[in-house]
Amino acid sequence: MNELKLCVPDPSLDLVLERFVEVAVERVWAAWTQPELMVQWFTPAPWKTSKIELELWPGGKFKTVMESPEGELMDHDPGCVLEVVENRKFVWTSGMMPGYRQRAAAEGEFLFTAEISMAAKDGGTLYRAVAIHDDAEGCRKHEVMGFHDGWGAALDQLVALMK
Amino acid sequence: MNELKLCVPDPSLDLVLERFVEVAVERVWAAWTQPELMVQWFTPAPWKTSKIELELWPGGKFKTVMESPEGELMDHDPGCVLEVVENRKFVWTSGMMPGYRQRAAAEGEFLFTAEISMAAKDGGTLYRAVAIHDDAEGCRKHEVMGFHDGWGAALDQLVALMK
Repeated sequence: MNELKLCVPDPSLDLVLERFVEVAVERVWAAWTQPELMVQWFTPAPWKTSKIELELWPGGKFKTVMESPEGELMDHDPGCVLEVVENRKFVWTSGMMPGYRQRAAAEGEFLFTAEISMAAKDGGTLYRAVAIHDDAEGCRKHEVMGFHDGWGAALDQLVALMK
Repeated sequence: MNELKLCVPDPSLDLVLERFVEVAVERVWAAWTQPELMVQWFTPAPWKTSKIELELWPGGKFKTVMESPEGELMDHDPGCVLEVVENRKFVWTSGMMPGYRQRAAAEGEFLFTAEISMAAKDGGTLYRAVAIHDDAEGCRKHEVMGFHDGWGAALDQLVALMK
């Protein structure tokens, strides 16, 4: 395997969640890449994930539909998988449709690329998620929307599921 | 190697140049991936390529500067390499900066992803370049700007150089 290239986050543009979790790296990877597992943790309760479609190759589909307790659906255009390095790195973006087709943001939407990386450590996993934005406004919107709480709560659910 | 996934072009959104060339596939690959070769063919004469910066990994930099006979420079933001499959497939986009950071189009600019694919055939190469656009307007602009003549003339230069 080539040397792993990881994002060097820009604090004005990127949001980072980094944490050690007591789940083996292979199980964290499985939770992120098997739809039947992913639906169980990806959306912080009381919302849930209604649907996941995942094509695990560069250019493949990354599609999630979230559902509120009242049944309201958050159903965006599908995103695009960019990198799949087993047990190490998973990258996808909301800024492209499957097949690397650029998409423009809907009104009020911000686009981002998510880089999920993981490394085995002491039987658990050093886990990092970076949300990469094209401008400071998108980054701020994502932060205000609750990136840290939301991604943190989702990770808690992943740990509870896979531990 | 996994099965090669190639774009299925959408005629309303994508532009395709497909041609058999009498250059071995390894040499076509070299021409596309070695900057010192690429500067010699990438820009149709009488324009030339002043500079190429290429980081040959997913998320790496794809930067070209073109120069008119009068010395006028066409110097865009750098694009992003998406896929590198030796002797088979090279994908990059103008819609992201290196590191998968989304970028918005400048005024009048259209964004696109380029998928270059090649397959060895009869000692030569079946070569295909697809320019993938996010909307029909971008596709049309690219066509009117001379996609077919421009990419065709560049390919002629590649063949003359590498034959």
